[in-house]
Amino acid sequence: MSIPAIPATHRDLLDLPIPVALATVSDDGRPQVTAVWAVREGDVVLISVLASRQKYRNLLARPQATLFVIDPDNPYRTLEIRGDIRIEADPELAGFAKVLAAYGSDLESFGGIREGRVLLTLCPQRVVAQ
Amino acid sequence: MSIPAIPATHRDLLDLPIPVALATVSDDGRPQVTAVWAVREGDVVLISVLASRQKYRNLLARPQATLFVIDPDNPYRTLEIRGDIRIEADPELAGFAKVLAAYGSDLESFGGIREGRVLLTLCPQRVVAQ
Repeated sequence: MSIPAIPATHRDLLDLPIPVALATVSDDGRPQVTAVWAVREGDVVLISVLASRQKYRNLLARPQATLFVIDPDNPYRTLEIRGDIRIEADPELAGFAKVLAAYGSDLESFGGIREGRVLLTLCPQRVVAQ
Repeated sequence: MSIPAIPATHRDLLDLPIPVALATVSDDGRPQVTAVWAVREGDVVLISVLASRQKYRNLLARPQATLFVIDPDNPYRTLEIRGDIRIEADPELAGFAKVLAAYGSDLESFGGIREGRVLLTLCPQRVVAQ
């Protein structure tokens, strides 16, 4: 099955250095939404998360997630990407470095937690641009 | 069970006249996220939706939803409200009028669809303010 493209009209929303909303589903069936850093790589999206987080546990059990961006300059312009999540170890933090670079940072200057990070790849199954 | 309070530090995010993200869960188990108008009424949140929409069908089957707001002026300030949804008919559009008023509009000047609207009340079960 081919991956639906992220429309050129809305790619800028993923290329902005702003956190985006990532929705997963908890064991109790409720949606959980948190802000994450994400970087587009062609038609997939890379996200780095700590394996200690609830969203990661949700994704281990149910590897589907939805990314949602509201344009901060025009809140009626939105991008929703529902997709499947591929989970990979990121021992050298090469994936995390790509995400950091998109936010003007790098491994050297990043002050947060490095250990226990995994790389998520969101493969779009449905894209809604408005 | 008491409703968790929406912290005073983050209430402004619900009182701003901007669309907010509402996550529901589809029949296939994937999260769906759309932008909605919402108004806080004490510690619950009112949302008006068309009964023809997917999110409404999701909520009929699974009456739980999560509202998520990113501060447009400081994208590291966020509010997540996971809650139960009460669904009510809104035949006189009294609920919809409250939502419109919060966005500087009213029933008279609203140009969109009026028919087939239902009122959702989000009753918080878990609130995460960051």
